[in-house]
Amino acid sequence: MIIDSKENDSNIEEGFMREALSLALKGKGRTSPNPCVGAVVIKNNQVVGKGFHRLAGKDHAEIEALKEAGANAYGADLYVTLEPCNHFGKTPPCCDAIIKSKIKKVIIGDVDPNPDVNGKGIRFLQDNGIEVRSGVLQKECQAINLQYNKWISTKLPYVTLKAAISLDGKIALESGESKWISNEESRRYVHKLRSETDAILVGIGTVVKDDPLLTVRNEEKAYIKKVIVLDENLRIPFSSNLFKRQFGDLVIATTEAALKNNLKQSEKIAHKLLICETTDNGQLSLPSLLKQLGANGVTSLLVEGGGKVFSSFVQNGLVDHMVLCIAPKFIGGKGKNFLPEIDFNDLSAVPRLADFSVKMLGDNLVVEGCLNA
Amino acid sequence: MIIDSKENDSNIEEGFMREALSLALKGKGRTSPNPCVGAVVIKNNQVVGKGFHRLAGKDHAEIEALKEAGANAYGADLYVTLEPCNHFGKTPPCCDAIIKSKIKKVIIGDVDPNPDVNGKGIRFLQDNGIEVRSGVLQKECQAINLQYNKWISTKLPYVTLKAAISLDGKIALESGESKWISNEESRRYVHKLRSETDAILVGIGTVVKDDPLLTVRNEEKAYIKKVIVLDENLRIPFSSNLFKRQFGDLVIATTEAALKNNLKQSEKIAHKLLICETTDNGQLSLPSLLKQLGANGVTSLLVEGGGKVFSSFVQNGLVDHMVLCIAPKFIGGKGKNFLPEIDFNDLSAVPRLADFSVKMLGDNLVVEGCLNA
Repeated sequence: MIIDSKENDSNIEEGFMREALSLALKGKGRTSPNPCVGAVVIKNNQVVGKGFHRLAGKDHAEIEALKEAGANAYGADLYVTLEPCNHFGKTPPCCDAIIKSKIKKVIIGDVDPNPDVNGKGIRFLQDNGIEVRSGVLQKECQAINLQYNKWISTKLPYVTLKAAISLDGKIALESGESKWISNEESRRYVHKLRSETDAILVGIGTVVKDDPLLTVRNEEKAYIKKVIVLDENLRIPFSSNLFKRQFGDLVIATTEAALKNNLKQSEKIAHKLLICETTDNGQLSLPSLLKQLGANGVTSLLVEGGGKVFSSFVQNGLVDHMVLCIAPKFIGGKGKNFLPEIDFNDLSAVPRLADFSVKMLGDNLVVEGCLNA
Repeated sequence: MIIDSKENDSNIEEGFMREALSLALKGKGRTSPNPCVGAVVIKNNQVVGKGFHRLAGKDHAEIEALKEAGANAYGADLYVTLEPCNHFGKTPPCCDAIIKSKIKKVIIGDVDPNPDVNGKGIRFLQDNGIEVRSGVLQKECQAINLQYNKWISTKLPYVTLKAAISLDGKIALESGESKWISNEESRRYVHKLRSETDAILVGIGTVVKDDPLLTVRNEEKAYIKKVIVLDENLRIPFSSNLFKRQFGDLVIATTEAALKNNLKQSEKIAHKLLICETTDNGQLSLPSLLKQLGANGVTSLLVEGGGKVFSSFVQNGLVDHMVLCIAPKFIGGKGKNFLPEIDFNDLSAVPRLADFSVKMLGDNLVVEGCLNA
């Protein structure tokens, strides 16, 4: 038997990179505005150190792994899902630490799209005599940071639209009743989505009708996420549950005109007001809102409704990813439409879901993909 | 190694029954009002004869298989997906032929729910010294005759509702444009459904708007199927393509009142008019229509729309099976609803799809199951 040593090598490389990937995912949803990253230090085909980025401001994955490896890092290989940084952020550059620890070779998953890094980390390591190989499981390493990747290159949040609909495309009965359209498993999945996102956005209609708490629980852990309320005319009721949030956790997006009309009310709101530009016909401009959110470090946004908000995001082509939890029920023509206000006049122009996947969560069908409007 | 000879035997039995099943399916859609049936004659673990029911009035599966087996039937086993008949229908009873051919053992998939048979075939064989075993792959053998099974026991057709909808539950744009909501693969699947059904039902709205031909092509074969038009007020245009059908292939279901109001027009229609009872509020009674169709030998009905017809069938709980071809598109709130007229006032009461399956046909999601209203 002839053993293809090259292929064997690449299997070994992919195996260690997978270990780094699964470490990276442990930080998913808590590293923002940083990406999630995992790293392992390998000596004689053994893991001698591992780490992941846990929280913005804390050690990067490489540093955690090198600390654990200690003197074992000498002459070892470092596997890291994302190119190490060579600039000072909240923490000193990882490249310096790698060089100091006498790592021999660095194996990288994906190049960091951050213009401050973007290949500079690799060159810096090479210039310091370290062997570098990049692109191992690149697609997988890229996929875990879709949100960061969009934000770091555009400064706009990655937008996920999530809706629970019936098989005939309704988000509520005529009466507005929408609770329990989806099932327990779908609701658990929504908490996972929320836990992996920086901020949750809802329309004022949903706040008035459902008075949601928008808490996040996932695997018995609770998370605090920013909530953005789209409130064009500043009509949020003072009794809203959302006001129980701390300053900074609730952002009310409104317009200059609404502020002027409600000056007294707005002064009473001890929460952040985000003044957005208006469109030519006087409506709150969603692109302006996204720009401000992005500038404020919101790398990802989960849009949770209702129908008017869904329609605006879809009509403006602002949805990167859509998640539909479809209950096998039929609500009928009087129910509330998922996209009441979108309007395309021929079938070739209507928005389509592309590259989508389908899975079952209990009796709910979960369809998710990207919009190709 | 210990070989479980009993288990081995049952594997062999199931193997031969699967052969009979795949033969049975060759007749699917052409045996009405008879069930589809397949049979194999086995001697020394070899197939010495096989057959299936091809067309009502032609040889039953058992007869075809026995003819092919000839003298080899002596002392052989006969596998048949459905209990052999012991009564004279369009053909003489199969039980007599089985006894005459000196078959030793008959292995049966499912008992025939036809009250004229229903166990009597089995008893007759046993009374004539033939060993009988029944219930081999019973579920599978039952599943291929769901339509026959309902009709033979209730005299009502088995109703399949088929719709092409967008992911937001629309069957057409506001303009009525609906062509190409679904894709090529889905349309091919619809031809398969049509080919397996006795009659296709459409509402007068669909006839006026789309002027369909409702032809059936499947695997390069063309079929002629009955078309039923639900035409409560007898307003079918004389220019309709459906009038190109032969007498008997087109049935216009209407009411006594409509007939009186359109006596002159109705006399000109050289097609079958089916006068249905009306409900308390003067509308065509669907249960009355189904009763008449069943009495006329229509064992299965494919309801193809439009929205008003879909709504009536769902609202009245008359759908046995639903097939939704879902295109990954979003038409928006102005589009035509799949079920415009159903009306349930709380979520616990809305109709649900049960025991459903999901498959992909190209980029269309096909969801099918039964309604549990």
